[in-house]
Amino acid sequence: MGLRDFTLRSVMARNARQFGDRNAVFFEGQRITHAQYLARASALAGGLAAAGIGRGDRVAVLAQNRLEYLDLYGAAALLGAVIVPINWRLNAEEIAHAITDTTPTLVFADIQYQAAIAAVRKRCASVRACYGFDKNDAGFLAYGTLTDVSASAPPDSVSADDALVIMHTAAVSGLPRGAQLSHASLLASGVQLMNHWRLGPDDVNLGVLPLFHLSGLGLFLGVLQAGGATVLSARFDAAAAARQIAEHRVTVFAEFAPMLGSILDASEAASTDLSSLRAITGLDTPQTVTRFEAACPNAQFWSGFGQSELSGMATLSPFRERPGSAGRPALLAEVAVFDELERPVAAGTVGEIVARGPLVFMGYWNRDKDNAETFRGGWHHTGDMGRFDDDGYLWYAGRSAAKELIKPGGENVYPAEVERVILEHPAIAEVVVIGVKDAKWGEAVKAICVGKPGAQVPAADALIEFVGSRIASFKKPQHVVFVDSIPKTAAGVPDRPRVKQVHGGD
Amino acid sequence: MGLRDFTLRSVMARNARQFGDRNAVFFEGQRITHAQYLARASALAGGLAAAGIGRGDRVAVLAQNRLEYLDLYGAAALLGAVIVPINWRLNAEEIAHAITDTTPTLVFADIQYQAAIAAVRKRCASVRACYGFDKNDAGFLAYGTLTDVSASAPPDSVSADDALVIMHTAAVSGLPRGAQLSHASLLASGVQLMNHWRLGPDDVNLGVLPLFHLSGLGLFLGVLQAGGATVLSARFDAAAAARQIAEHRVTVFAEFAPMLGSILDASEAASTDLSSLRAITGLDTPQTVTRFEAACPNAQFWSGFGQSELSGMATLSPFRERPGSAGRPALLAEVAVFDELERPVAAGTVGEIVARGPLVFMGYWNRDKDNAETFRGGWHHTGDMGRFDDDGYLWYAGRSAAKELIKPGGENVYPAEVERVILEHPAIAEVVVIGVKDAKWGEAVKAICVGKPGAQVPAADALIEFVGSRIASFKKPQHVVFVDSIPKTAAGVPDRPRVKQVHGGD
Repeated sequence: MGLRDFTLRSVMARNARQFGDRNAVFFEGQRITHAQYLARASALAGGLAAAGIGRGDRVAVLAQNRLEYLDLYGAAALLGAVIVPINWRLNAEEIAHAITDTTPTLVFADIQYQAAIAAVRKRCASVRACYGFDKNDAGFLAYGTLTDVSASAPPDSVSADDALVIMHTAAVSGLPRGAQLSHASLLASGVQLMNHWRLGPDDVNLGVLPLFHLSGLGLFLGVLQAGGATVLSARFDAAAAARQIAEHRVTVFAEFAPMLGSILDASEAASTDLSSLRAITGLDTPQTVTRFEAACPNAQFWSGFGQSELSGMATLSPFRERPGSAGRPALLAEVAVFDELERPVAAGTVGEIVARGPLVFMGYWNRDKDNAETFRGGWHHTGDMGRFDDDGYLWYAGRSAAKELIKPGGENVYPAEVERVILEHPAIAEVVVIGVKDAKWGEAVKAICVGKPGAQVPAADALIEFVGSRIASFKKPQHVVFVDSIPKTAAGVPDRPRVKQVHGGD
Repeated sequence: MGLRDFTLRSVMARNARQFGDRNAVFFEGQRITHAQYLARASALAGGLAAAGIGRGDRVAVLAQNRLEYLDLYGAAALLGAVIVPINWRLNAEEIAHAITDTTPTLVFADIQYQAAIAAVRKRCASVRACYGFDKNDAGFLAYGTLTDVSASAPPDSVSADDALVIMHTAAVSGLPRGAQLSHASLLASGVQLMNHWRLGPDDVNLGVLPLFHLSGLGLFLGVLQAGGATVLSARFDAAAAARQIAEHRVTVFAEFAPMLGSILDASEAASTDLSSLRAITGLDTPQTVTRFEAACPNAQFWSGFGQSELSGMATLSPFRERPGSAGRPALLAEVAVFDELERPVAAGTVGEIVARGPLVFMGYWNRDKDNAETFRGGWHHTGDMGRFDDDGYLWYAGRSAAKELIKPGGENVYPAEVERVILEHPAIAEVVVIGVKDAKWGEAVKAICVGKPGAQVPAADALIEFVGSRIASFKKPQHVVFVDSIPKTAAGVPDRPRVKQVHGGD
């Protein structure tokens, strides 16, 4: 570690000293203190080092939330290794992409995902061993063999600018890219959250978002930096979440619609106590936010603009300060709105949202050309559009033409990726995929298709199934329509704004 | 500015946008908003640029606290220039050292210090121009000529790792060394203070410490980062401070004994309201801290271990958590205690306090050899001794043998420097200077002298006057004794612990 470095190891060691006996994690009846978290991560780091993992090596994880997932993040931090957390909702081909893209040395997987890993392993010579947790397929080693070795503590050689995570996102050209996040940017995001929410060692986070999502990881880290605790769940369950909030006096969490609404339903049904809640952030409807703040008058819903590429939130303000906006630039972010010539625009004018500061990610893994484009002029170009109002609140205005992102229930679906798959269908000549409003999930995927001349176009259901068999189920269109032609721009490419205008109504 | 940079400019620009109409500074009846602070600093930056100041250039300031001092810090931040703030209690020779050591391009001085600057200017070819504020000696230009030019905004080329300040301190070998502090380390210290004190835009800092001291600058910056205000005073006056606390609803400040005690006296005498105070830090006696917390039951006195070289505080906790200790490691600091072989010692064992993390300074200006020594093994060696207790609180245990620092009223006095001057007296053969307890100032300087054989030793008063004519008055001994011999170690050098044991009683 360098003279001016501060890493996740620094945080874990400080917590072990200053808050050693206090709670760090609750999971399925188990309680882990801060001293235990450091001890568990250190033991695992010893085992990983013995298995050949060192600074910069990738370790892929394909698992639902569990204690060992947090231990893997902690052990990687101690070693300078890089966790590649894989979305378990991806299909086998997408999982294979995450593996072959990052060439991990070790892979950890829950039993239900081990077949997918076994399939890709042949194609990826970097993988020296695969581990499972409880039960394992043949070819998967037992996790316990890593933690019961008595290895010496790893040397203290990690830099704050080392990557801790590669998180796949932003499949703007059809395949997800791995956003590399450093200790420095993740901890800056955590300090920022600590400051906005005034987090301290008494705070308790409800860890219902998956640890392969930045929001899930970010809330865990922010509350960890404050010396607080996370109540982790394998998967989201509204009734369980309502009970956990009451039992552990949960103070904060992050969520995506419809989680909060369903927690409010469950809490009303079972008369559980939500009064410990102070701050929530995420993406939700104004109706649910209003309902939440009425039910929990001491709590605030915080609106923001965030990305994996920004290690969390670049803007963050209480919803009620300016309902509908994405809030004002957060403590450590510079945020601006640029026109197509990279000039800042006046308040009220829509342009591309750009950001700089310590939150900005290290770049996409092995994508130098993309990185040069994304970081041109010394600003991270988010691919999202927005405008500032006169008081400095950011108003989100959709994705840029280059990044037509759809967000059903907090997941990222890139039209380019869905379009690529639909065009593999032998009867489809052209397609434009757009997002449409959805009462439950916020947004849904809709495909506007043109059939090939003379071909029998498939039924909507069949085409949806065709997509679902090739990419993750959450990327399937909910709606399919066939049209005679798709409007084009003067340049001959699909006129997406026009398509949305015509077909965006459901 | 780089992709991941965040500088004082970032803070000033954000404040101007988000808190534009709110107060940034009060000074002698004037009120400056955050928007005005940015505008003033920008105008001055234009003038400084026209006067030849660019990135990395030094600008020396020898002035009591005033608005223009803050403008100079802000303008330097916009340009990437470096402020060299000079202690106005230094004498002409010491001022000359600060100037010749850092070779500034411009010098700013109050009228009463202009003669000292004029004397050194001949020896320092780097100085292109000198400026005064209100009235000026011949050869000093009017400050106003810098701010009424309509220069264009400086280019946005400053890095967070650029120096913003060179602050002279640590005269362990007889002459002060210039500690270089970057935007990154100063802002990290500010974010840390924001977090520990939960600072926000409603906070108001009482700026009674001089802006040439890190504590004075650091509190201003920390509260500025939170969007709050500073009530600046040219010099400390207890009655005025008590009135200002009531008038501006001051919430926080930093002080050195006997400031707080005298404010409490003044407040009692005039029945002023201190109830707005929340948090104070500094160095003071347990009696005064206890009295303060009794008078202000909603406020806390915070104890810490700080240095200019650490951009502020590396440990910080409420006094009442562990009275007498220096608190626990602060949010962004790693602090350890090492033995002479650079090994961490067990809790309860005294050793040298070392630190690392984003607070660590850039090194002493032009002192590569000293820096290599100070930063050996990737830790900043503070030259101070201490021990941790079992709960992780640091207990200060005096200066290391290499850094016999005495702190009368918050100033730094290095025995080596005073000893060097005393040895210039023709009748003195040997001398050891130590610190002794002082009821008012915390510590006082005491000289234990051996006369030359056959020489007539001077009277104590005469020797004190001799020292005062050569270095700053606050470095003069308060006590002088003559002895026949000074105890030596086996190595033949003065046995300082022994001298302290024998002569440390008054």
